Amino acid sequence: MTTRAVAQRAGLPLGAVSYHFRGKQELLTQAALATVEAALPTGELAAVNSLAELIDLMTRAIGDRHSETAVLSGVLVETLREAGRDPALAERMTGLLAEYRRLLGDLVRAEQQRGRLRDDVDPAALAILLAAVGDGLLLHALLDRHLETDDAFETLRGLLER
Amino acid sequence: MTTRAVAQRAGLPLGAVSYHFRGKQELLTQAALATVEAALPTGELAAVNSLAELIDLMTRAIGDRHSETAVLSGVLVETLREAGRDPALAERMTGLLAEYRRLLGDLVRAEQQRGRLRDDVDPAALAILLAAVGDGLLLHALLDRHLETDDAFETLRGLLER
Repeated sequence: MTTRAVAQRAGLPLGAVSYHFRGKQELLTQAALATVEAALPTGELAAVNSLAELIDLMTRAIGDRHSETAVLSGVLVETLREAGRDPALAERMTGLLAEYRRLLGDLVRAEQQRGRLRDDVDPAALAILLAAVGDGLLLHALLDRHLETDDAFETLRGLLER
Repeated sequence: MTTRAVAQRAGLPLGAVSYHFRGKQELLTQAALATVEAALPTGELAAVNSLAELIDLMTRAIGDRHSETAVLSGVLVETLREAGRDPALAERMTGLLAEYRRLLGDLVRAEQQRGRLRDDVDPAALAILLAAVGDGLLLHALLDRHLETDDAFETLRGLLER
């Protein structure tokens, strides 16, 4: 696909698109990063105040898999593919992932202070684990639409509660 | 890539390759399934007797990410892409994943009977969670080579021990 085709599809003059994105590669990079941001619920994490709400958020993200998530997963796969070829894009995806984990770590710390989460676990390490659980379950749910992800989340909740 | 090119590369007569794989689609499907089997350590699970050994196995699989896993991940991404277009392939991948979870469930049950794993968790649900943790951590480690996956596994071990 050419920058010209993108401009035509968006109903914009070619010059405006070329100027804004400084070429096709930057346009692809921005599209890929927007996709990763949509897949990692970093923005929604700001409104999440408890582990229970986090698990609800992840459950909803996976529950949507019959609708927009299916489309998203196609774009996500293309994005991973693109990142394998473009180190600058890979680095920016790493940054988004790190920010997501940082927010998860903050949430874990807050829940521990409230006494609602086991306080014998390291918040940063648990954040890595939680991020992996969310994306791993999403990946497997995309492959198997009958996967009982609710049961897995329930187990996780049980393991983490004090 | 054509079936002819594959035959040439493998140093085989075109007829032999066409006959064995019944066309290019079947050849692609077999290559994709072999990749998924390599990514899910189903074969190695037979030799795994404890949760500690399972975590070691997952850790090794992720630790290899600077070598063959990097290549594998490229093929995995292509495989996910192909599965999005080929329902028969997607169904066979679902089957491999189900078999992997079944083996994980057997392991959980055995460890619970030995009293080495919390017995208040449902084995099938924990199997879904463990499979997701392994693949989620692998996915994130591929994006971020400095990710502290060992800390995450250590946390998981702590949460599961009786």
